[in-house]
Amino acid sequence: MTPETKVTIERINSSVAFDVRLAQLDVECTRAHIDMLARQGLLTADESVPLMRALDEVEQMVLDGRLIFRAELEDVHTNVEKAVADLCGSGALWMARARNDHAVTILRVWLREAIDRIGTRLATITGLLADMSAAHADMLMPGMTHMQTAQPVTWGHVCHAYGEMFLRDIDRFMAARTRMNLSPLGACALAGTSFDIDRGFVARQLGFDAPTANSIDSVADRDFVLDYLNASATLSIHLSRIAEDLIVWITPQFDFFSLPDFLVTGSAIMPHKRNPDALELVRGRTARIISNLSTVQVMLKGLTMSYARDLQEDKEAAFDTTDILELSLDVFELVFRHIEPNVAQLAAAANEGFTTSTDYADWICRNTALSFAQAHHATTALVKIAQAAGCGLGDLTPAQRAGVAPELVIPSWPKIDARNSVQSRTSQGGTAPDCVRRAARDLSVHLEERVPAAWKQPDIKGECI
Amino acid sequence: MTPETKVTIERINSSVAFDVRLAQLDVECTRAHIDMLARQGLLTADESVPLMRALDEVEQMVLDGRLIFRAELEDVHTNVEKAVADLCGSGALWMARARNDHAVTILRVWLREAIDRIGTRLATITGLLADMSAAHADMLMPGMTHMQTAQPVTWGHVCHAYGEMFLRDIDRFMAARTRMNLSPLGACALAGTSFDIDRGFVARQLGFDAPTANSIDSVADRDFVLDYLNASATLSIHLSRIAEDLIVWITPQFDFFSLPDFLVTGSAIMPHKRNPDALELVRGRTARIISNLSTVQVMLKGLTMSYARDLQEDKEAAFDTTDILELSLDVFELVFRHIEPNVAQLAAAANEGFTTSTDYADWICRNTALSFAQAHHATTALVKIAQAAGCGLGDLTPAQRAGVAPELVIPSWPKIDARNSVQSRTSQGGTAPDCVRRAARDLSVHLEERVPAAWKQPDIKGECI
Amino acid sequence: MTPETKVTIERINSSVAFDVRLAQLDVECTRAHIDMLARQGLLTADESVPLMRALDEVEQMVLDGRLIFRAELEDVHTNVEKAVADLCGSGALWMARARNDHAVTILRVWLREAIDRIGTRLATITGLLADMSAAHADMLMPGMTHMQTAQPVTWGHVCHAYGEMFLRDIDRFMAARTRMNLSPLGACALAGTSFDIDRGFVARQLGFDAPTANSIDSVADRDFVLDYLNASATLSIHLSRIAEDLIVWITPQFDFFSLPDFLVTGSAIMPHKRNPDALELVRGRTARIISNLSTVQVMLKGLTMSYARDLQEDKEAAFDTTDILELSLDVFELVFRHIEPNVAQLAAAANEGFTTSTDYADWICRNTALSFAQAHHATTALVKIAQAAGCGLGDLTPAQRAGVAPELVIPSWPKIDARNSVQSRTSQGGTAPDCVRRAARDLSVHLEERVPAAWKQPDIKGECI
Amino acid sequence: MTPETKVTIERINSSVAFDVRLAQLDVECTRAHIDMLARQGLLTADESVPLMRALDEVEQMVLDGRLIFRAELEDVHTNVEKAVADLCGSGALWMARARNDHAVTILRVWLREAIDRIGTRLATITGLLADMSAAHADMLMPGMTHMQTAQPVTWGHVCHAYGEMFLRDIDRFMAARTRMNLSPLGACALAGTSFDIDRGFVARQLGFDAPTANSIDSVADRDFVLDYLNASATLSIHLSRIAEDLIVWITPQFDFFSLPDFLVTGSAIMPHKRNPDALELVRGRTARIISNLSTVQVMLKGLTMSYARDLQEDKEAAFDTTDILELSLDVFELVFRHIEPNVAQLAAAANEGFTTSTDYADWICRNTALSFAQAHHATTALVKIAQAAGCGLGDLTPAQRAGVAPELVIPSWPKIDARNSVQSRTSQGGTAPDCVRRAARDLSVHLEERVPAAWKQPDIKGECI
Repeated sequence: MTPETKVTIERINSSVAFDVRLAQLDVECTRAHIDMLARQGLLTADESVPLMRALDEVEQMVLDGRLIFRAELEDVHTNVEKAVADLCGSGALWMARARNDHAVTILRVWLREAIDRIGTRLATITGLLADMSAAHADMLMPGMTHMQTAQPVTWGHVCHAYGEMFLRDIDRFMAARTRMNLSPLGACALAGTSFDIDRGFVARQLGFDAPTANSIDSVADRDFVLDYLNASATLSIHLSRIAEDLIVWITPQFDFFSLPDFLVTGSAIMPHKRNPDALELVRGRTARIISNLSTVQVMLKGLTMSYARDLQEDKEAAFDTTDILELSLDVFELVFRHIEPNVAQLAAAANEGFTTSTDYADWICRNTALSFAQAHHATTALVKIAQAAGCGLGDLTPAQRAGVAPELVIPSWPKIDARNSVQSRTSQGGTAPDCVRRAARDLSVHLEERVPAAWKQPDIKGECI
Repeated sequence: MTPETKVTIERINSSVAFDVRLAQLDVECTRAHIDMLARQGLLTADESVPLMRALDEVEQMVLDGRLIFRAELEDVHTNVEKAVADLCGSGALWMARARNDHAVTILRVWLREAIDRIGTRLATITGLLADMSAAHADMLMPGMTHMQTAQPVTWGHVCHAYGEMFLRDIDRFMAARTRMNLSPLGACALAGTSFDIDRGFVARQLGFDAPTANSIDSVADRDFVLDYLNASATLSIHLSRIAEDLIVWITPQFDFFSLPDFLVTGSAIMPHKRNPDALELVRGRTARIISNLSTVQVMLKGLTMSYARDLQEDKEAAFDTTDILELSLDVFELVFRHIEPNVAQLAAAANEGFTTSTDYADWICRNTALSFAQAHHATTALVKIAQAAGCGLGDLTPAQRAGVAPELVIPSWPKIDARNSVQSRTSQGGTAPDCVRRAARDLSVHLEERVPAAWKQPDIKGECI
Repeated sequence: MTPETKVTIERINSSVAFDVRLAQLDVECTRAHIDMLARQGLLTADESVPLMRALDEVEQMVLDGRLIFRAELEDVHTNVEKAVADLCGSGALWMARARNDHAVTILRVWLREAIDRIGTRLATITGLLADMSAAHADMLMPGMTHMQTAQPVTWGHVCHAYGEMFLRDIDRFMAARTRMNLSPLGACALAGTSFDIDRGFVARQLGFDAPTANSIDSVADRDFVLDYLNASATLSIHLSRIAEDLIVWITPQFDFFSLPDFLVTGSAIMPHKRNPDALELVRGRTARIISNLSTVQVMLKGLTMSYARDLQEDKEAAFDTTDILELSLDVFELVFRHIEPNVAQLAAAANEGFTTSTDYADWICRNTALSFAQAHHATTALVKIAQAAGCGLGDLTPAQRAGVAPELVIPSWPKIDARNSVQSRTSQGGTAPDCVRRAARDLSVHLEERVPAAWKQPDIKGECI
Repeated sequence: MTPETKVTIERINSSVAFDVRLAQLDVECTRAHIDMLARQGLLTADESVPLMRALDEVEQMVLDGRLIFRAELEDVHTNVEKAVADLCGSGALWMARARNDHAVTILRVWLREAIDRIGTRLATITGLLADMSAAHADMLMPGMTHMQTAQPVTWGHVCHAYGEMFLRDIDRFMAARTRMNLSPLGACALAGTSFDIDRGFVARQLGFDAPTANSIDSVADRDFVLDYLNASATLSIHLSRIAEDLIVWITPQFDFFSLPDFLVTGSAIMPHKRNPDALELVRGRTARIISNLSTVQVMLKGLTMSYARDLQEDKEAAFDTTDILELSLDVFELVFRHIEPNVAQLAAAANEGFTTSTDYADWICRNTALSFAQAHHATTALVKIAQAAGCGLGDLTPAQRAGVAPELVIPSWPKIDARNSVQSRTSQGGTAPDCVRRAARDLSVHLEERVPAAWKQPDIKGECI
């Protein structure tokens, strides 16, 4: 083997460049395993005590950045193993265990913790949106379809819509967390072991709900990665849609909202430019998060059972998605905390065009003898007249209305503006301020009920990297 | 507008070619809506009774294939609306309702029913695998990693691994079903309505658990499609992996299993060819199912709230995925019912190579004074000697063993074959027959517990198309 | 085999529902093959003449819609074969040919013709954009980055940018066409044949440039489908980006352009709504076109050589992409023919904000002793003063300018508006009207040079379906 | 702004962690630009000479690893700019240039060089396969369809098929290279510049064929990234398919080929395991390469013109794909250089089953009065008899043959084995050894003709990272 060949082979086989971030978890999982072996009498104290001490020391080296990871040792597991062996000379690490079950266990723990970090952020943002929803339940703005004003709504109602999206994300991550929280340790290479191990103990030590049920499936399965990446993709799509909303709404042409200086970029020479770079980056990276899911799906498709080296490709996708999402959620918390609605502009836009014409039709249906269909047709005719006259529907004279239908000549003929429209839409989930306030309260309650205590501590934010 | 222009515009806007399959559900959802309007006193009996009668008639026309759907009417909803209007002249259909909330309600019902059809099939197959798992718990076969024999397992154990995969699929579809089972009807265009409607009544009529909480989100949200397509993608990846297993295992070179004639294609002139076309098609179409998920994700990414016409692209992806999956599951039921293990060949392959060498290492560790690491090294040395001598590890003479370590010269030196190996791997989830039988029972129990009654009726198989 | 099993097996194996559209090409390719066999003396006239006559008759049946395709015959090829056999009783169709090489040959021809239909549309649209580019070379509009006005450009310049994008698409489709235009016929199952065939003759008959070079590769290769789908995906992304431009620009808030009634949808009751459904559908379907490429990539990945049934999945992806693209391009031709720039609004927007501040910096650098960096800093300071004073940079008094730098107190201090800015940007490819007109001419010339004669005939528009 | 906010904003905006590898190219492109400004008289020697000197020094710092890149400076461009300013105090770097055109120019150069590195490897491997093809033109092996033996071919023929695949890849990368080799420099922010620059000079300096034609398109376009990623995806699919071939063929069950120790992994304790990790990693990473293309497609889809920050996502996808491909090709060169065909096993497998039955049918058609269809039917009958008798077709007695058709009772009744079959398939591109040798020569000639001189120098292998 030439030196060049050696380099190529080492490079294709080495994964330590990215799996190094699992080092501490490797130690943690190994410790639980050794602890169990000792309790089961499979290791004597002479064997296990030095091992446990070595593991503690290696963990400290990892935390202090003193452990030098070497690419030629292939992956984080062999690096940790080597470090332990250097300290205590023991080779019992792989008793009743194999790389196949060990690596997949670590990844499950890592993803569970990633979910907790993301969940904490989601809980914060959703709570914030519930508050904004209540606080701005009366603030008019245009409700958009096709990027065009359809009917008036309120900013609080839109905030609540965003909150509902994130509440579903929370559900999805919780479900992924529950489904993945089973310990594969003890599956060994794929067939289990003849040693009298206690898989339940190891599972409990590592915070798992139970051991997995089938050793072959344990080393072949990557559903838990797919569940995580799918929850991430949907969350990311939500972020991207909201980003697009705001990117449009902060253009000078729309001018619905303003973002503080630190959330836009621009140049002093062009003060009119307030480029939403941060939002664009969140939007753009959604593409990568969708693709990271595809990567693992495509890698898995058509792979025979059980383990194959292709499966190593699960990690980079998961890491990259996590890093993007944590940062994107931090950005979004800032966005929601600092976005400024341009109240007057929003109200004006909510009234521009015939945004309350369906309100007129509904009013006519309710207050005259005309049927729903007749009311609708009459309103269409009134709109045409008002448009020609350059006035609003509420400004139409009795004579103008009479020309459409005699039933419309009534003294109570209303002026329905955006405010009236919004007030009237009291159906459940509708945009009427009271409905929105009620919905905001419900959202807070659901959040309180569904989110685990751990996610409510704002300090669980950082991974140790 | 030239005739050519007219054709182009009609073609781009028309969706009836594919949404026609929603016709019956359109009637069903409309009926619930009209029923509610009547009960709330928003429609008089004079208005509602002819409408309900017309809806019944249109439904019958749909079922009989008498309703002619016209592309120039754009979509299934306008076709149904037109048919109703032709019968009873009424235009009240769109009171307190819009196409935005109506269309999305129908799709939720359709997907819920699709899940029930898929779930029924999954329950059948998983039950079948639980049975096979118990029945074949003793049948030796090679456990494969990297497409190569690693350690002996049993066919029952592999069947159980497959069953566990499908059990997770069942969970995932159930979760998707629960999360989607909320009624958007009443969200109208996006802002709700000022009519005094009862969204809860409509929800109950249509089998939903409750109404959705936010009208804007109701018309913008397609998470439920993503949840469905993601559960489908993961299921499909499972099918594809199992297909690949079997495609490899039925080659004459492996010869582990046989499929009946109707599951392979070939030509009389080449009787040695038993091409697994059906399995290949399942595997190949996995690509499409993954892509259908991508399609909806990519379509949604960066779309402003709330409704945009792009959202129409949710349907074909969902329909195509459903059609493929139902057919693929039918094929897989046949595969599992008819696959024949080539027992002798499987057992022979399970013993080929040093497939029990780790068993020897574990045995030495347990039965001699050697530590785990020493036992492992000793076995490696023994394997080298046995390989050179062309014999098995159990055949090594005391003298040969003594050369490796004096501790190995013991009278109880075993012959460990695949059978012994499998028997010994009694760790939870391991391949020992008793473990597999216990796991098979657990799988049956879980299936019984988690699967709704409806999914256990084998007759819910067909969609009315 | 139960009747249900029979149905399942027939359904999984049958592809005639979608490959039926290849029927005429099947006949055409078969005819060329039989013709060759006759010329080579491998068929006698007694054999070949009735066969050729039967093929003509079957082709006519296909064209007239008289040929009934039966799902249980599996695919279009067996249906055609059966029809021929019914007419002339001959079974020589598969001499020196197999389904593997036959099917792939037909798909190549079909895709070549699809490229010609798409290319014809692209040539028309690009020519149109070259004309628009020249015609509107002087029409000011804001040049956008980050969806915000950056510097003034012209509508003609934007049209030319679009034209350049499509010109690259034309190149890409041409390259795909050239690369795919090789005949696989004669590769047979995968090994070639011992009959003395003339592959070159068949290739020429079918319009191919040459036969393929390797029989195994011929039946395994689907690169030509990938090339086609990739060119399609890039084109589709172009359409989607332009669609998004226009969707933003026709909002009342931007009001840069207007589309005619037939290109928007709305309701009479809401005349302010001009929903760009057609553009949204083009944008939304881009997701599907991207996914169709993925489908074929993912299906191919990891497939062993040579043929496997998974490969059948190439067709639906190709058909769907083609149908979407042809229709989308027809829509885009209408869009470009009918879009109306709102000239005054565009010009006003081009002048809004400090859109010419970099022009000032450049002017100062050229006309004073200040270096480029100094000029840039000075302009920044001037902008700050102008902003505070509520005036433009051109309105600053000598005193105001002196406060920034004495060099700025010069009599020639200019008023640079959008018009001046645009006029001055004469670098190659820049937005100066003369540059744009020159670029428009170049685009027309390149189009003329690169596009084959066939693509210039506006009547090659329809596929016979 | 809190410190936490500052960190979040800095992290979302900073790209230096990955774009640092463009540092040297940044200097190179800047140098060409400054050089041009000096030649055009836009910079005096006093300005340009220190700048050029500073650029040289910064380049040396980059090469020596002395330049410290700081995340808070955002990207590689500002880091280089700062380093230059620190050295010479000049701020003229951005005269007649913007980050928009500068960044995209650098990426084009980087990708062009990536193509050259990949192209060099492809040329080597394709040349190697042409040689192997000629060398092994006579070595029998089974030709596979559906992962099952179909008809005999030769290993040389398969090598040639692989070579043809890579030759198309070379074409595709060449086309991508040509299409991307245009210089966007001078497009500035998006509108061009009023300075009298010479875009052609800069283009020539940087090895481009010409400047781009439209300044707006120049900063908006990422087609060249898509072209690159698509060529990469197709190449990667080829590698993955070949990897799958070999993974199957080196299983003990197939045993068609052997790989040297350094290309497989295993453990001393399980000498029967020869896990093809390197091939599996190549296969698995194909998923990532396909996804990297998707990432850029999805990011671009629906992005308004011209520049948006989302576009930054083009780089990581391109870098990652390049790194994977270079390494994968290095692995494949080793694979092809070191793979050992198991000659006897291959020949035996080529004869197993009725692999020459179509040869018999063809022989009968040519040597008796039976028509092709009759010959085919007769052979089917003979196969049935031979199968029952447990003999080959060549062993059938005249009596056995007479039972099928009297025409078959001829003295010249042949024994057709795999060797005869292969010899006879002399159609162009067929598996006959002479055909394969001719095809191998053609492949070498095409390679010589199409590959640029630069790709033939085996020393262009490494990027300076």
